[in-house]
Amino acid sequence: MRNFKLILQYEGTRYQGWQRQESTDNTIQGKLEALLTKMTGQKVEIQGSGRTDAGVHALGQVANFHADTEMEPQEILEYMNRYLPEDIGVIEVREVSERFHSRLNAKGKTYCYRVICSTLPDVFDRRFAHILTETVDIQAMRRASEYLLGTHDFKAFTSNKRGKKSTVRTIEEIRIEKAVSTSMCMQGAADEILFTFRGNGFLYHMVRIITGTLLEVGTNKRRPEEIKDILASGSRENAGELVPARGLALMEVRY
Amino acid sequence: MRNFKLILQYEGTRYQGWQRQESTDNTIQGKLEALLTKMTGQKVEIQGSGRTDAGVHALGQVANFHADTEMEPQEILEYMNRYLPEDIGVIEVREVSERFHSRLNAKGKTYCYRVICSTLPDVFDRRFAHILTETVDIQAMRRASEYLLGTHDFKAFTSNKRGKKSTVRTIEEIRIEKAVSTSMCMQGAADEILFTFRGNGFLYHMVRIITGTLLEVGTNKRRPEEIKDILASGSRENAGELVPARGLALMEVRY
Repeated sequence: MRNFKLILQYEGTRYQGWQRQESTDNTIQGKLEALLTKMTGQKVEIQGSGRTDAGVHALGQVANFHADTEMEPQEILEYMNRYLPEDIGVIEVREVSERFHSRLNAKGKTYCYRVICSTLPDVFDRRFAHILTETVDIQAMRRASEYLLGTHDFKAFTSNKRGKKSTVRTIEEIRIEKAVSTSMCMQGAADEILFTFRGNGFLYHMVRIITGTLLEVGTNKRRPEEIKDILASGSRENAGELVPARGLALMEVRY
Repeated sequence: MRNFKLILQYEGTRYQGWQRQESTDNTIQGKLEALLTKMTGQKVEIQGSGRTDAGVHALGQVANFHADTEMEPQEILEYMNRYLPEDIGVIEVREVSERFHSRLNAKGKTYCYRVICSTLPDVFDRRFAHILTETVDIQAMRRASEYLLGTHDFKAFTSNKRGKKSTVRTIEEIRIEKAVSTSMCMQGAADEILFTFRGNGFLYHMVRIITGTLLEVGTNKRRPEEIKDILASGSRENAGELVPARGLALMEVRY
């Protein structure tokens, strides 16, 4: 059996997330497996580096699958891009060692979350950003984000209630930058804030709850120092709101 | 009767263009008129600065309408943005003099056309750019574009066959720039070429035929000097291909 590693991009808008489900064929994993099964004539299972939720995008999702095929990586890439829906794209296919596992071997991930501060509708970014009608204090959010750096138990920042697995994770970097929205070719008037999170792994909803909490700091609903207490409490209800999926994108998986 | 000037943005993807049609209610003008008629209780007609074709976007379309209403511009803006579909947005509403006419008073327009050169699918820009699998010689296109500057009869560069109206137009500027694709928050690997056209007005399909012709120069299918002969011929069949609507956006209307 050969093992192939893929780098994938998808717009999550119309999918029920990455993970295959019995109840719907409208998942990224489901679409990919159906196509690869057709391509190879064998039942193929594809393993992602992790799930992305319904509506979340990916620019650098990594996945791998085993198959008995004579096809070369470039042929696989071309075949997949010919038949996949236009909101899923394969950026790279490589043959890797039999033992490579996209989830178990992942050492780190980078996520971005985009927020646009505007009282006007954003026709071009509406699928790819969370629109906030308030202005935001970036310095306050940066101060708050420092409490999250390093290794902590992030139990307060996940929606997962079944508490069997470890909720300890390491966040290496949180970047919060002001950017000018560049929807289409226009330099938009809207203020855009880009959050970049780099860490060894992220719990269910963790990036979106952290972003929501930081935005509450940025809009003066919380003080930066509260983050320390929220972390220590281990209690989801102390953290901020879950922000919408559409602003989130998995950018990169590191091995 | 008060007269209101609007600045509008829309994603053209799912519309049959700007202009109201008897056969469909799926036009931008149709959507706006239906809403304004509902808002004011009067039959409202809205006048655009010009038509945009099916699939063409706008970041700065201008329109105006007359109505007897007590509503203030800001209230109109808020009402419209509350009820318009999310792919149409109102950026500004101002009350203007009775005589202002968005089409007749327009002195100039700016259009942008985006091309992405990549052999890979572009999941995030597929609605907003023309994807070209070849690489393109920007210098050759710039040389070719110089023949189009100034006042010319652009008959060869329009699809309109009924030859009653003047096809003389003035192009003040053609900018051809290489940009790095910034789909979502990623600095994409794909090469992006942005064409900007500024002129006193553009004929039916003119920007898309000029762009298609310049791309044929850029991919070595034509020499830059041929543009001169195409212009002089006045014959549509001598010009290049009509490129897809999705790469085009009306950026600005000047008065």
